[in-house]
Amino acid sequence: MGSPMRRVSQEDTWSGQVHPDIASERHVQSFDVERLTNILDRGAQNTARRRKVESIIHSDPEFSCKDNYFMTHNERYEAAVKKAFHTQMLTQSLGWSEEELVYVYRALSGDTVLGMHTGFLKALRSLGSEEQIAKWEPLCKTCRIIATYAQTELGHGTYLQGLETEATYDATTQEFVIHSPTITATKWWPGNRITVGDIGPKMNFDELDNGFLRLDHVRVPRENMLNRFAQVLSDGTYIKRGTEQSNYLFMVVTRVEILLGEILPPLQKACVIAMRYSVIRRQSRLRPSDPEAKILDYQTQQHKLFPQLAMSYAFHFLAISILEFFQRSYNAILDRDFSLLPELHALSSGTKAMMADFCIQGAETCRRACGGHGYSKLSGLPSLVTRVSAASSYEGENTVLYLQVARFLVKSYLQAHMSPGSTSQRFLPSSVAYLTAPDLSRCPAQRAADFLCPELYTTAWAHVATRLIKDSVYHLQTRTQSGQDQHEAWNQTTVTHLQAAKAHCYYTSVKSFSEALQKLENEPAIQQVLKRLCHLHALHGILVNSGDFLHDGFLSGVQVDMARTAYLDLLLLIRKDAILLTDAFDFTDQCLNSALGCYDGNVYERLFQWAQKSPTNTQGNPAYEKYIRPLLQSWRSKL
Amino acid sequence: MGSPMRRVSQEDTWSGQVHPDIASERHVQSFDVERLTNILDRGAQNTARRRKVESIIHSDPEFSCKDNYFMTHNERYEAAVKKAFHTQMLTQSLGWSEEELVYVYRALSGDTVLGMHTGFLKALRSLGSEEQIAKWEPLCKTCRIIATYAQTELGHGTYLQGLETEATYDATTQEFVIHSPTITATKWWPGNRITVGDIGPKMNFDELDNGFLRLDHVRVPRENMLNRFAQVLSDGTYIKRGTEQSNYLFMVVTRVEILLGEILPPLQKACVIAMRYSVIRRQSRLRPSDPEAKILDYQTQQHKLFPQLAMSYAFHFLAISILEFFQRSYNAILDRDFSLLPELHALSSGTKAMMADFCIQGAETCRRACGGHGYSKLSGLPSLVTRVSAASSYEGENTVLYLQVARFLVKSYLQAHMSPGSTSQRFLPSSVAYLTAPDLSRCPAQRAADFLCPELYTTAWAHVATRLIKDSVYHLQTRTQSGQDQHEAWNQTTVTHLQAAKAHCYYTSVKSFSEALQKLENEPAIQQVLKRLCHLHALHGILVNSGDFLHDGFLSGVQVDMARTAYLDLLLLIRKDAILLTDAFDFTDQCLNSALGCYDGNVYERLFQWAQKSPTNTQGNPAYEKYIRPLLQSWRSKL
Repeated sequence: MGSPMRRVSQEDTWSGQVHPDIASERHVQSFDVERLTNILDRGAQNTARRRKVESIIHSDPEFSCKDNYFMTHNERYEAAVKKAFHTQMLTQSLGWSEEELVYVYRALSGDTVLGMHTGFLKALRSLGSEEQIAKWEPLCKTCRIIATYAQTELGHGTYLQGLETEATYDATTQEFVIHSPTITATKWWPGNRITVGDIGPKMNFDELDNGFLRLDHVRVPRENMLNRFAQVLSDGTYIKRGTEQSNYLFMVVTRVEILLGEILPPLQKACVIAMRYSVIRRQSRLRPSDPEAKILDYQTQQHKLFPQLAMSYAFHFLAISILEFFQRSYNAILDRDFSLLPELHALSSGTKAMMADFCIQGAETCRRACGGHGYSKLSGLPSLVTRVSAASSYEGENTVLYLQVARFLVKSYLQAHMSPGSTSQRFLPSSVAYLTAPDLSRCPAQRAADFLCPELYTTAWAHVATRLIKDSVYHLQTRTQSGQDQHEAWNQTTVTHLQAAKAHCYYTSVKSFSEALQKLENEPAIQQVLKRLCHLHALHGILVNSGDFLHDGFLSGVQVDMARTAYLDLLLLIRKDAILLTDAFDFTDQCLNSALGCYDGNVYERLFQWAQKSPTNTQGNPAYEKYIRPLLQSWRSKL
Repeated sequence: MGSPMRRVSQEDTWSGQVHPDIASERHVQSFDVERLTNILDRGAQNTARRRKVESIIHSDPEFSCKDNYFMTHNERYEAAVKKAFHTQMLTQSLGWSEEELVYVYRALSGDTVLGMHTGFLKALRSLGSEEQIAKWEPLCKTCRIIATYAQTELGHGTYLQGLETEATYDATTQEFVIHSPTITATKWWPGNRITVGDIGPKMNFDELDNGFLRLDHVRVPRENMLNRFAQVLSDGTYIKRGTEQSNYLFMVVTRVEILLGEILPPLQKACVIAMRYSVIRRQSRLRPSDPEAKILDYQTQQHKLFPQLAMSYAFHFLAISILEFFQRSYNAILDRDFSLLPELHALSSGTKAMMADFCIQGAETCRRACGGHGYSKLSGLPSLVTRVSAASSYEGENTVLYLQVARFLVKSYLQAHMSPGSTSQRFLPSSVAYLTAPDLSRCPAQRAADFLCPELYTTAWAHVATRLIKDSVYHLQTRTQSGQDQHEAWNQTTVTHLQAAKAHCYYTSVKSFSEALQKLENEPAIQQVLKRLCHLHALHGILVNSGDFLHDGFLSGVQVDMARTAYLDLLLLIRKDAILLTDAFDFTDQCLNSALGCYDGNVYERLFQWAQKSPTNTQGNPAYEKYIRPLLQSWRSKL
């Protein structure tokens, strides 16, 4: 079973005692938690490697995050630079590979600064020629150069064609002259302070010095343009080697990587914290004669937290499936076979948008589920929420991404239905193959238990996604056929397209979760407990969007009630495994950095003790002498 | 038309030039903006009074908030104490009444510290005897004493019976001995540092020193117990003068006041900021031949922002209607006529929960609608979101409040239906009178335009609320009739009750908005423009919850599509008045404190200029010398 106790920070535990209210939750284990952790890590050897890195990081005081909540913006930045420096030192001395650096990033919850530098390295690998990679990769990996990635401008983000920075080729010197002609052309957001200024305080990410950069006719050698897919010859001739989309490959790479690296962990951690707090917090009585109940025993608390827990697992398996698809297609794209790029782009865009939406909302739901204490930064929850909130706009604004998925769906739908029997139909990308599958017009469920069936609810989601896509195509065509300009028609139907894209993405998450479960045949206990989460994820989505299922009579009102009964019954079943299912994420106490969410459950002692360390308590109260005492005394002068 | 230009901060405008992209939005005014501001202020004389206070505050540098985004937690606190001190000085010299102090609070966006002190004053008026009020009110109003309100403990919030602080009466000295027996009995959250410590960093509210307080057998004279509704005689005899609920009167007072004072303004301000930014920001082209479009011309942007704008107005009129009901019933309650207290409690609890939920979500929607710039604190949006986020737990945790509404609804439903024809039915509180109104089983709408009718959609909301309440009563009774313990039955049906309570609250907001419009008969232009917002508010709610309307066939799928068409058409109509409708909230630039949301629309210049003032730019970069330079040089030692 492993030794989960080793995951506890030794620093401020109370004689190593685990609170009895959380110990009892772990007493009967219906499945092997350590084995589930191994599955999430994609192999026991990865769990071991990860824990080794975490133990090195957590035992080194240079990497401590414990005072983070008390620091100023500048202090956070300096501490993060220090961590990046020590990471580089350890990398050199221990010979860490990039996999180990991913574990360092996890251990530090991203509280380090070289993300943009690493970003550049990946852009180089995606867009640079082999020669360029050979030249710059070693310099980057050893930090002999520190790079950034400057794309977004003050006035433009989404619409890359609108970027104003000018690159004029000067054939006489074989240089590009890079220039910012206007204030809105100022590069805005590149990090790692190689630039002329910081863009100022943000909602979170204090540790990152997102900068601005204005360029006044800066000269850059011709060879420095990354030239895998496009090249400028010495005479200025532009040679195109890819498609319009191929230069966006790096953005696809990033979108795939942030799913597991940035977007999901805040939701998982918020679940761990809220779930652990919910078995320690007791409030009110279920019956007048009972002791006060653990708040996790209230149906409304389960209704808040368990869909988030289910989502945490659903998104894990979805992200893994997209990562695997990416790994299968990346080398082909580098070799200029772009056939899989449109599907990869649609899958990664839609998944990024959906996961960002739900992880922001889910982390906030967990925060609120902890009541007033969830508003304290010491709970760890506000930082998780404000950090993941950035995901709605970085690496592609969510609405724009959903609409790109919608364009892919419209195109696929037309391909499937407008030329029946043609070859194009047979080659429909696998993620949209359901558009041509035989469709039921009525759900066959006759009682609540019928809804506990992956085939049934996957089919239901496919039906709804298909109907909404069909509907959005219909609205678009009605407008163009009545003479409306196609661009205007698109704009006036985007709310419909958005809805269709969201249903498609949700379908994808339900499908990938149930496919992942099929592969767990040799782990029946884990398969069973995860299956309940898969059911819950699918049914929660159906209940939230019940209008889409009722709209054409696919579900009847009675069937929606059955689905709700099945959902509410699942809450009770999941209840007994809830703590173990969050333990399995295997986040260390240091990584959670939460007074509410530590493994041992000593919530109140830790919250009280941490509060004492706040500068509001340690730095005195000069405002009292300056303002409050004079205020209390001011009336004397009036008497 | 008034002179809206006077609302602009002079400090950093660009030669007083209003950006042409926002000027054009104000060129044709389909209604009188100043008159709408007067309506929102409940009278032109109030607008004038408010502006007078605002001009005094904004012209005094002691009250400046402009460096707020760059301050540390302790600096924010000290600056807020300074503002409270100067407010008190001005109050004494100018003879400001409590109405003026409400305008001060608005001008400062709550960036001051004496809220808890004022809170105590209101608790005194609600719960104190006339003698106690006469004794302490003058001391409080002149700050000769500074008070706080210490209710919540580390271990208990919602469940007041579970509070652990002990008050033991000692008849020999006629004193109460107040004592904190455990760590969880520590008072947690009282503000205004009269206590032994600060609870540490929070998601926002840095200016408030929410404290903790541990009491070791502190002695308090018997007469200091507020004794309007309960009294302890000198021999220790407890005399009850009210009902169980009457001691909660102060909580009702607070819930009513925060609707307009705390919860709504962040949503309104977020609307102003996002709307103004959305007519300056241009991104992408609607047609290849067009210039880049204002992002407010995209249907998806309208779909994000206009429901928030409609909600801002809907909640304003709802809060006013509850305030008026409160004012009608407060004096009766003080005189121990408690007949209206249950309805007042249900109305204020449900409205607080709904408004908090939607204002948090709406402010965040506005923030995200501004893309990456919405993530900068300089936009003002992150602070609005993190501040209003506290509203989900303060003054009653939202889920708990909704469930209290649900109990009121169950009781009212049983009263209405279980004893038909009896007198109790006739006296159903007016907010739930719809439970006995004749009900339609099918919506009569036959085309999209039919949905633009307050009677139609108010009836639709009443139908759905009634059905959900009936359904939750049915589920509850089915369980108890099959022998389940009533408390267990309640807990196992709370998700259903929650849904019913939410539908009831939404119905209330739709109804109060349409009733407010009826009173604007003499202002046809304003009535027309607000009517569109009322339609949008009702229809947006129907579309988001379409499953509840389709469930029993009240709406058909075809009718939902009609409602959607009506909704999308409204977006286009509201578009032309969008800026004017946010201008009418009449927030000063200083009060908005947003680089994106100033009246003149000079977004990029201001964002660039404000960023320069950040300590990340003004305090140098010591981390570079300490860590980055050594890192860049470390390879040399290896060569």
